[in-house]
Amino acid sequence: MKKRYAVGLDYGTSSVRAVIIDVENGQELSHHVFPYPHGKEGVVISKDDNNLARQHPQDYIDGFITSVSEAVKAAEAHPEFSPDQIIGIGIDTTGSSPMPVRKDLTPLAFEKEFADDLEALVWLWKDHTSHEEAVEITKLGRKMKPHYMNKIGESYSSEWFWAKALHCLRVNKQVFKEAYTWMEIADWIPAVLCGIRDVDQVKRSVCAAGHKALYHDDWGGYPEEDFLGALDDDLVQLRRRLPNKAYDILEQEGALSGKWASKMGLPAGLPVAVGAFDAHLGGVGSGVSEGTMVKNIGTSCCDILVSPLTDKLADIPGVSGIVPGSVLPGYYGIEAGQSALGDIHGWFVDMISRGQNKKPLFKALEDEAADLKPGESGLLALDWMNGNRTILVDQRLTGMVLGLTLHSASHEIYRSLLEASAFGAKIIADRITEYGVSIKRIINCGGIPFKSPLMMQIYADVFGMKMELSQSAQTAALGAAISGAVVAGSKAGGYDTYEEAMKHMTGVSDIVYEPIEENTKIYNRIFKLYKEVHDAFGVEGQQADLYPVMKQLLDIKDEVRTS
Amino acid sequence: MKKRYAVGLDYGTSSVRAVIIDVENGQELSHHVFPYPHGKEGVVISKDDNNLARQHPQDYIDGFITSVSEAVKAAEAHPEFSPDQIIGIGIDTTGSSPMPVRKDLTPLAFEKEFADDLEALVWLWKDHTSHEEAVEITKLGRKMKPHYMNKIGESYSSEWFWAKALHCLRVNKQVFKEAYTWMEIADWIPAVLCGIRDVDQVKRSVCAAGHKALYHDDWGGYPEEDFLGALDDDLVQLRRRLPNKAYDILEQEGALSGKWASKMGLPAGLPVAVGAFDAHLGGVGSGVSEGTMVKNIGTSCCDILVSPLTDKLADIPGVSGIVPGSVLPGYYGIEAGQSALGDIHGWFVDMISRGQNKKPLFKALEDEAADLKPGESGLLALDWMNGNRTILVDQRLTGMVLGLTLHSASHEIYRSLLEASAFGAKIIADRITEYGVSIKRIINCGGIPFKSPLMMQIYADVFGMKMELSQSAQTAALGAAISGAVVAGSKAGGYDTYEEAMKHMTGVSDIVYEPIEENTKIYNRIFKLYKEVHDAFGVEGQQADLYPVMKQLLDIKDEVRTS
Repeated sequence: MKKRYAVGLDYGTSSVRAVIIDVENGQELSHHVFPYPHGKEGVVISKDDNNLARQHPQDYIDGFITSVSEAVKAAEAHPEFSPDQIIGIGIDTTGSSPMPVRKDLTPLAFEKEFADDLEALVWLWKDHTSHEEAVEITKLGRKMKPHYMNKIGESYSSEWFWAKALHCLRVNKQVFKEAYTWMEIADWIPAVLCGIRDVDQVKRSVCAAGHKALYHDDWGGYPEEDFLGALDDDLVQLRRRLPNKAYDILEQEGALSGKWASKMGLPAGLPVAVGAFDAHLGGVGSGVSEGTMVKNIGTSCCDILVSPLTDKLADIPGVSGIVPGSVLPGYYGIEAGQSALGDIHGWFVDMISRGQNKKPLFKALEDEAADLKPGESGLLALDWMNGNRTILVDQRLTGMVLGLTLHSASHEIYRSLLEASAFGAKIIADRITEYGVSIKRIINCGGIPFKSPLMMQIYADVFGMKMELSQSAQTAALGAAISGAVVAGSKAGGYDTYEEAMKHMTGVSDIVYEPIEENTKIYNRIFKLYKEVHDAFGVEGQQADLYPVMKQLLDIKDEVRTS
Repeated sequence: MKKRYAVGLDYGTSSVRAVIIDVENGQELSHHVFPYPHGKEGVVISKDDNNLARQHPQDYIDGFITSVSEAVKAAEAHPEFSPDQIIGIGIDTTGSSPMPVRKDLTPLAFEKEFADDLEALVWLWKDHTSHEEAVEITKLGRKMKPHYMNKIGESYSSEWFWAKALHCLRVNKQVFKEAYTWMEIADWIPAVLCGIRDVDQVKRSVCAAGHKALYHDDWGGYPEEDFLGALDDDLVQLRRRLPNKAYDILEQEGALSGKWASKMGLPAGLPVAVGAFDAHLGGVGSGVSEGTMVKNIGTSCCDILVSPLTDKLADIPGVSGIVPGSVLPGYYGIEAGQSALGDIHGWFVDMISRGQNKKPLFKALEDEAADLKPGESGLLALDWMNGNRTILVDQRLTGMVLGLTLHSASHEIYRSLLEASAFGAKIIADRITEYGVSIKRIINCGGIPFKSPLMMQIYADVFGMKMELSQSAQTAALGAAISGAVVAGSKAGGYDTYEEAMKHMTGVSDIVYEPIEENTKIYNRIFKLYKEVHDAFGVEGQQADLYPVMKQLLDIKDEVRTS
């Protein structure tokens, strides 16, 4: 029997990656990366406003043409491959990354009139120009719709759909008015691939809509008009043009249009899956299932879990995204995370290197830190250098290092930062299990787990659990391809369920980090102190007695050093 | 009229400095520095024990011979000088730095039998081998003699006399038993200069005895026998050979012996003042008086104040040394301090430089930090990298930096450490004034105030007070010379009182740092937060709500950045 392949398109912050994946075993046959031509490393920025981060939608079109056609060419080097063996396409993107479009899906950015309007571009996930609007939405939500807020961890983010649309309305009313609607690129790209010319025909992704666009079936989808009207009447108009239903990735967006198919070197009519965000399809590409937490660890960290819809999951305080179907059909998708992770270690190296060559310093710190025993430095850090996404949901928290002495060395501080990330991760896991979602297994993906064995060992020791690594280094792209294989279905040589697809197409690496019992014992003690400091600075109205913290760190240090 | 001169001998950690000072105006005519030949930079250390720091007493004798004779030679280059114009000698030393001696003042270290015994050497102030004994003395003191503990800020230090003697008794009983008594080098050196051969003839310094040897008139001088007996019977024997009275620096130890006079190039019979510790005579050299705080800022910081004995000063909680006569006759001497100061900034530069050339980095950080506004970094640090001497009196406290973000730069952290030192200094000053000792003026001396204008400006802004600098860069040596001029008396061309001597011989520099009102306003707000964190981690049983701290630092940062 001939092999079957699926295409995954992974739209990242600076580039899009196309992969061609063997449907039988999930192995990558070929890939091609296309860096976005616009802006600085793909991001349009502004000298006047550090918060601004936009993208040009033309890059997405050029991106799918080039990356897929090149990946196909590369695949053709393999004699067993021919393009007609490709059975489906899936897409993941960053998000929330919305843009204003016409009813026929034309981005305003494509029109001459708006060529110079930064507001007509895609508002990239990390665009924080809407921070005031986010605060406004949060305040109103807490007063008027507390049940909305319960679903998003109590705070609306400046990175999300409504804050961005509202900010556009405030700063560039013309763009807002001319737009028929706003679309996440996770919806726009699949629709364009299918040649859809009417936005009302688009199946929008539930992964993108809830919680970032406050979509939930409990209140009939997107937020109610009274709420949006209290923010601005014009938002009500936008709401009326949004659909009442969003779809999970079991759904096919449509069939690949002939126009693009020929440019990409693919057969026309291929099924295209509804889009989803990268972290969520990264969960799929890592083989997420009930009881498994997928940790996508890069500059920040995104945790993905699923829990059967039949289990009636309660809201989990501080866990920002619990959305039915956002990861897998038939499951709540649970999304949590840490606002900075690799970024923290990068910051520290940057800070001490003062512009010097960082690479050898990273390596040296990693090696020296690996020689330390848990507790040996007497240091304790808080991993809040970019705020806290879960479970405190508070951007206005900052990082800390305590336990410093005149002997504290750079590699000791470096290690304390890795430990802080692990402690922060454990706080999240503990909160989730506390609310009835069991975590029996942790699979790590993203860049850092492959780069830092020390980090993974610290995680294993802090959690007292085995740390596994996803087999694939490109789990989001793999997850996208899996969605392509599922919308193709078994008749086409794909799969009918995600469970079946993941069973064949995902796996874990042979590298496994086992917890070391004596390390776990020490870390349990330090974690208790982390939790005390975490709550003291992070929980409003908390009364804390922190006097014992420094003493206990010194006790542990003395014990470890003399043992 | 012929000019008159006094000799000051300043025994530091690595070297002794002799100065020849013009009695009329305090100007230095000449000086000579003699580095101690023994050990590493004058300190005998041990590979097996980082806590050990000893000195060889021969270095003190070689030191006064060489340094004074060379200073005299240098002075002879001035035609107006001849050695017979020298009228007196004063001595300051480190402390508590005791050693075991025979009844005739011979150090055991001079005897062949003990040549290899580290315990027979001088136990330098920074020798911490006695940390367990210090804890033992503290525990017993709190139980048995709480009024002793009140006078020393509630904790006995491993740096002090009784802890060291007790540790010697435990680890080298032979040395302890062979010694007739233990002497501070502040007592031994003046006595040797005067040729005293019977320890019972030595006038011991009240500056050295109280509080470091728990000397206080309230309980008849050195600690009572029941207390010492509860520690070890052998300490009772040591106590019985100590005098019942100690003396202030108005007192003459004796007359310079002919033997040493000829070797030093001085007239025999010169009056030699009772010795004192360096920080205390540094206070004198800076012109300490009622209402003036002298801050001696070097690797650590020592604060010296005086308050008239007639004012009946209460114990000041957390202020470790309030001793009648320890600084000036007729006044309580008040000693407070910070366990690390310049050491903290040195540590940070060391930590980030990882063995690179530190000097240009120091300069760059200082320059960049000077460009920051108060509050601009959003950072707050605790200056406890070497514990807290005043007002918490707790070595088991550690340093902290909070408010860190992914944008925190090295010069911002550096500045936050300078600010932490200033906040720590303000806590001390506030505590002292709270107990009725007013501080109308602050005079800074030591190395750092001359090296870091930024530091002095931060102090001025944090205190909201003018910061003055001592005229002399060698205030301890100057103070020693002043004591020489006072024991010589007015008949010999000196002075009869310290007030009179200081009026003529000390002064302040033209460089004055004035507080900038808007900076003080910001620092007042940050100091409040410092105090909250200080108390939360430093005061036992304190319940604190620290949630607002990070928020308020961010508020201040936002305000400052947009103003």
